[in-house]
Amino acid sequence: MTDAHLRASVERLLTTPAYHRWLGLHLLDVEPGRVVIALPYREEFLADVDGNYVHGGILATLADVAADFALISRLGYAVSTIDLRLDYLRPATPGQELRAEGTVVRCGRSLGVADASVTAESGRRLVAGRGVYSTAPPPDAASP
Amino acid sequence: MTDAHLRASVERLLTTPAYHRWLGLHLLDVEPGRVVIALPYREEFLADVDGNYVHGGILATLADVAADFALISRLGYAVSTIDLRLDYLRPATPGQELRAEGTVVRCGRSLGVADASVTAESGRRLVAGRGVYSTAPPPDAASP
Amino acid sequence: MTDAHLRASVERLLTTPAYHRWLGLHLLDVEPGRVVIALPYREEFLADVDGNYVHGGILATLADVAADFALISRLGYAVSTIDLRLDYLRPATPGQELRAEGTVVRCGRSLGVADASVTAESGRRLVAGRGVYSTAPPPDAASP
Amino acid sequence: MTDAHLRASVERLLTTPAYHRWLGLHLLDVEPGRVVIALPYREEFLADVDGNYVHGGILATLADVAADFALISRLGYAVSTIDLRLDYLRPATPGQELRAEGTVVRCGRSLGVADASVTAESGRRLVAGRGVYSTAPPPDAASP
Repeated sequence: MTDAHLRASVERLLTTPAYHRWLGLHLLDVEPGRVVIALPYREEFLADVDGNYVHGGILATLADVAADFALISRLGYAVSTIDLRLDYLRPATPGQELRAEGTVVRCGRSLGVADASVTAESGRRLVAGRGVYSTAPPPDAASP
Repeated sequence: MTDAHLRASVERLLTTPAYHRWLGLHLLDVEPGRVVIALPYREEFLADVDGNYVHGGILATLADVAADFALISRLGYAVSTIDLRLDYLRPATPGQELRAEGTVVRCGRSLGVADASVTAESGRRLVAGRGVYSTAPPPDAASP
Repeated sequence: MTDAHLRASVERLLTTPAYHRWLGLHLLDVEPGRVVIALPYREEFLADVDGNYVHGGILATLADVAADFALISRLGYAVSTIDLRLDYLRPATPGQELRAEGTVVRCGRSLGVADASVTAESGRRLVAGRGVYSTAPPPDAASP
Repeated sequence: MTDAHLRASVERLLTTPAYHRWLGLHLLDVEPGRVVIALPYREEFLADVDGNYVHGGILATLADVAADFALISRLGYAVSTIDLRLDYLRPATPGQELRAEGTVVRCGRSLGVADASVTAESGRRLVAGRGVYSTAPPPDAASP
């Protein structure tokens, strides 16, 4: 795949799903095995009674998508999450765009492992995520 | 706390936050150390280009909330997630209400561990989750 | 497989490996999808300068073996660990035999998930473990 | 602490415990927040009936120790594991010394997160580990 093809293919998979559209996810950077994804702020993201924090489930989603798309950027097709682990290092405060970098740790024929790092606008790391993904091609995947 | 007080207090913490309201989370059952929470279906939850699956980030959120509120139902105040682990056992298909049961594994003075199990309407288990939570009372918590 | 065949097959896989022999692992109970394994105390297990605690790595091993053998008791052949997660709920003090119960959460064609619970002689739970295992039969596995 | 003091203090905590002595763990490198630890091969480490693999429990122990000692190298006192997660990327074959690098992800007043990477002699990564540790000083810790 050329760089332009890779980017177009990853963008289509990232921006078409309904939940990704509601979140407002967009692709900042992509190369095979690595993506950077941005999540603009929405008021619906707030987690607590006082509205002081972005919900951990939003951060979990962003980390999952980043790790997942790191593998997609290597493989060219959608993969599914087998398990996901998230360390919440610091709370996310309202009003700022978040970023997540996803990187491939290992990409095997049936399984892949990828890392995700979610950061605030300040660059401070908020979440460290890691997941195992099924990398088997879907039944209808065109041969590469 | 009486049963009615416990329920009212847990419901307020569950249904006030903006993201919980958008999701439509509501409380089905609560006792100290255990909650059952329902998540009605929304079309915005879909994960993939073809709209065949509910997003793993939605399931992660539901599991996190269930585990978190199992501890809240014991402690009476909000707690924060330190880490979260999710095993995706089966995909969640569109159109159905999901349920999550949260149960306390251990509730210590500074740390708690809780489990969450997300099930489909059929009763089939979709996600097994487990998290570590900070159980220290907030600075302004009234003594129980 | 008859009960006696299952037990003999699981015992052979449990008690033959060199590290299992050094640890002294033995099988207390087995049925398809569930095992109970005992670990007698050894002084070499101590973790700290003062000799107050059994090493977390010993507990991790015991939990991994219990979850792994829960799947073996269903499948009849050895499986390999893809990932493992351990929650240390309480420290293990010296001098006592430990027990671990392993139970299958899901056993699919290529992947399995199993839980492990490590307890002290008192019955108190020390570790909650969960792992993902590769359940594909080995190339030389006889058909069941 | 001077470099020599740090190294002596970390080495004492690493090489005194009974299980660490049995394993043969030794310190290759240390600076505040990062350690490299070596584990020489022993035949007792073998995991399987045919003796083809080093036990995942040995690798789990090595990863736990590396992550734990990364925090110790920052704090100067022993810390305890709250939870541990291990991704087994490739099997460890017999006969070779293993290495683990531990690095601090976050070191807070009550909690720390650290990563561990276990590699073969070839430099290939075998295990990616991450853990949460209690970083509260022990009651009898001298002020630094």
